Amino acid sequence: MSSRNIKLLIEYDGTHFSGWQTQPRKKTIQKTIETVLGQLTQEKIRLSGASRTDAGVHALGQVAHFRTSSEISSRKLLGALNGLLPPGIVVKEVGEVSADFSANRHAKKKTYQYLLWNSEIPSALLRDRVWYIKVPLQISFMQKAAKYLIGRHDFSAFRGTKSDTKTSVRTIEKITIQRRGMKGAVVCIQITGNGFLKYMVRNIVGTLVEIGKGRLQIEEMEKILKSKDRRTASMTAPPHGLYLVKVIY
Amino acid sequence: MSSRNIKLLIEYDGTHFSGWQTQPRKKTIQKTIETVLGQLTQEKIRLSGASRTDAGVHALGQVAHFRTSSEISSRKLLGALNGLLPPGIVVKEVGEVSADFSANRHAKKKTYQYLLWNSEIPSALLRDRVWYIKVPLQISFMQKAAKYLIGRHDFSAFRGTKSDTKTSVRTIEKITIQRRGMKGAVVCIQITGNGFLKYMVRNIVGTLVEIGKGRLQIEEMEKILKSKDRRTASMTAPPHGLYLVKVIY
Repeated sequence: MSSRNIKLLIEYDGTHFSGWQTQPRKKTIQKTIETVLGQLTQEKIRLSGASRTDAGVHALGQVAHFRTSSEISSRKLLGALNGLLPPGIVVKEVGEVSADFSANRHAKKKTYQYLLWNSEIPSALLRDRVWYIKVPLQISFMQKAAKYLIGRHDFSAFRGTKSDTKTSVRTIEKITIQRRGMKGAVVCIQITGNGFLKYMVRNIVGTLVEIGKGRLQIEEMEKILKSKDRRTASMTAPPHGLYLVKVIY
Repeated sequence: MSSRNIKLLIEYDGTHFSGWQTQPRKKTIQKTIETVLGQLTQEKIRLSGASRTDAGVHALGQVAHFRTSSEISSRKLLGALNGLLPPGIVVKEVGEVSADFSANRHAKKKTYQYLLWNSEIPSALLRDRVWYIKVPLQISFMQKAAKYLIGRHDFSAFRGTKSDTKTSVRTIEKITIQRRGMKGAVVCIQITGNGFLKYMVRNIVGTLVEIGKGRLQIEEMEKILKSKDRRTASMTAPPHGLYLVKVIY
């Protein structure tokens, strides 16, 4: 009898994983944690995550839950998990939640961050953590273009072609774009919304970067959004600059 | 005829290299860059670095020089090098210098940085960039202990056992120890001096960490320094937290 529902807060380096979700013959975050939880509880564990991050995407605050009848304390579970998981995955918090809590269904908002490295010279140390853009970006153009995306819209234009979700309507609450440390070379794009389609953040970032380079007009963002046609938006930004930062319940 | 002397400023991720210096059958930074320079100049190039960083140690600002009779411009060389080098090595600047310039012999000062991750929970994303210390560190203890090291001293107590330098006398000009970003989890130790013995920074950091944990008294630092005996200092801090930040000429 599965009497407890346990919530995990998880950080991971997505570089060497085929994404969150369990797939046959692939090393995924979900499967890796499920295997360790199985060892610790001696049960078959099914871990359910808030976001199915793609291969190469990182997380600072993925949330997941699983049901167990094991009586191991949250504190012991935290230590044991971090002792057994590979170093690219760290469980930051373990807590017992009510029986009906679902990491995915009860998520009200998610915040993603995308990091660009915008400098004439690439970064050796951050190469797996940022997307390198050599052309100087006009951040103010990107900020203006991002405003068209705020609110409730049909985001079909930024939807991955393989996406199979029923509705493409989502609400983006906030987008901030700022230059940060390393002499301003790091550009951080933060997006908060009530949900995201497959590749949606990466397709938005790809289009913002084209606007920042001056290759697309600021107003094109509105046209692309309204077109609801994926072919109008720019390339999908690579996964290694993307981070799931926070899930809000 | 080798008519030009070229200086490089180099950043690298030391994780997958056996350090700076060329060794038989090892992948080193020096050898990797020499090979690419050889392709570009069609000459046998000997690259001489300011610091022989150990396996796993990173650099934000290694300096090296080489002589060549090639007429390739510095600007072209910069682009070609970064196009051909593996992504873990980036050349940040290329410049022509006077014929007698030596990256190693003319270095007046070097600054190293050591990053600790001091939190109950390790970091998944920074695991190859920081030394994880779970026990809360008293930064003020470490700052006080570091003061004993400032000035001209015989640093035999912090010298690697395999070190073969003639004199162990070096001058440390400055040590700063500060908590930084990520809710203060990152502790940054910066050390500037006129030169460093093999493992000297890592041995100093190992001892500072023991003092920060409260396992060694602050005043022990002075006793260890004066003992000139390596057996009195603490463990050598691991290489992956160490960065050669700057070489001053």
